[in-house]
Amino acid sequence: METIDFAKSGGIVPVIVQDHETQDVLMLAYMNEEAWAATRKTRKAHYYSRSRDKLWLKGEESGHFQEVKDILVDCDNDTLILKIIQHGGGACHMGYRSCFFRHDAGSDWEVCAPKVFEPEEVYKK
Amino acid sequence: METIDFAKSGGIVPVIVQDHETQDVLMLAYMNEEAWAATRKTRKAHYYSRSRDKLWLKGEESGHFQEVKDILVDCDNDTLILKIIQHGGGACHMGYRSCFFRHDAGSDWEVCAPKVFEPEEVYKK
Repeated sequence: METIDFAKSGGIVPVIVQDHETQDVLMLAYMNEEAWAATRKTRKAHYYSRSRDKLWLKGEESGHFQEVKDILVDCDNDTLILKIIQHGGGACHMGYRSCFFRHDAGSDWEVCAPKVFEPEEVYKK
Repeated sequence: METIDFAKSGGIVPVIVQDHETQDVLMLAYMNEEAWAATRKTRKAHYYSRSRDKLWLKGEESGHFQEVKDILVDCDNDTLILKIIQHGGGACHMGYRSCFFRHDAGSDWEVCAPKVFEPEEVYKK
């Protein structure tokens, strides 16, 4: 299997996360080799958290796991798409299905998607 | 308008490029502030080329311009989606509509999309 080019960007690659049925893009995350191996083995999306510098199982706290249905790689071997089933309310920690819930309305970013869960009920302190 | 966080990753942000009708993801590119301003002004996708360290009008050589229909931003203000009309054959310099033309078939990456143009006819040396 042709190797993913983790070296290009300091050991991580960007991962576009897409709903496998609607094709909506839910988030962009990053993987290092450890996250890639864990994702492929478990078929649950694992990422590398740049802010916390650690492996991160998506849904570990919220229960909003991502079940991997397919994985695509780009022509440069340095970007991935995960096609997933989003379990639970949504992918975004702010309570939306997608992290991309605002669009360019000319003079400002405008919310263009409904809130689907209350973050404070999902992320217990 | 809330500012895009270009500082987070050294002056650039990743941009997911999505067909505005089919929702297919065509490529991942990067923008700096100059590319962002040029894209918003002209409604043609401009990116920042990391390898060539310069502003890049997508389609300048190939004629395969990307007409911007909508722009979304994520919850962290550090990633964009461009929803576009892809003019010409495709987005990928290797002759495919999408740069993501291979998927994980278990033991190898397997081509899962048809070639739509011949690169040597489009990219004149």
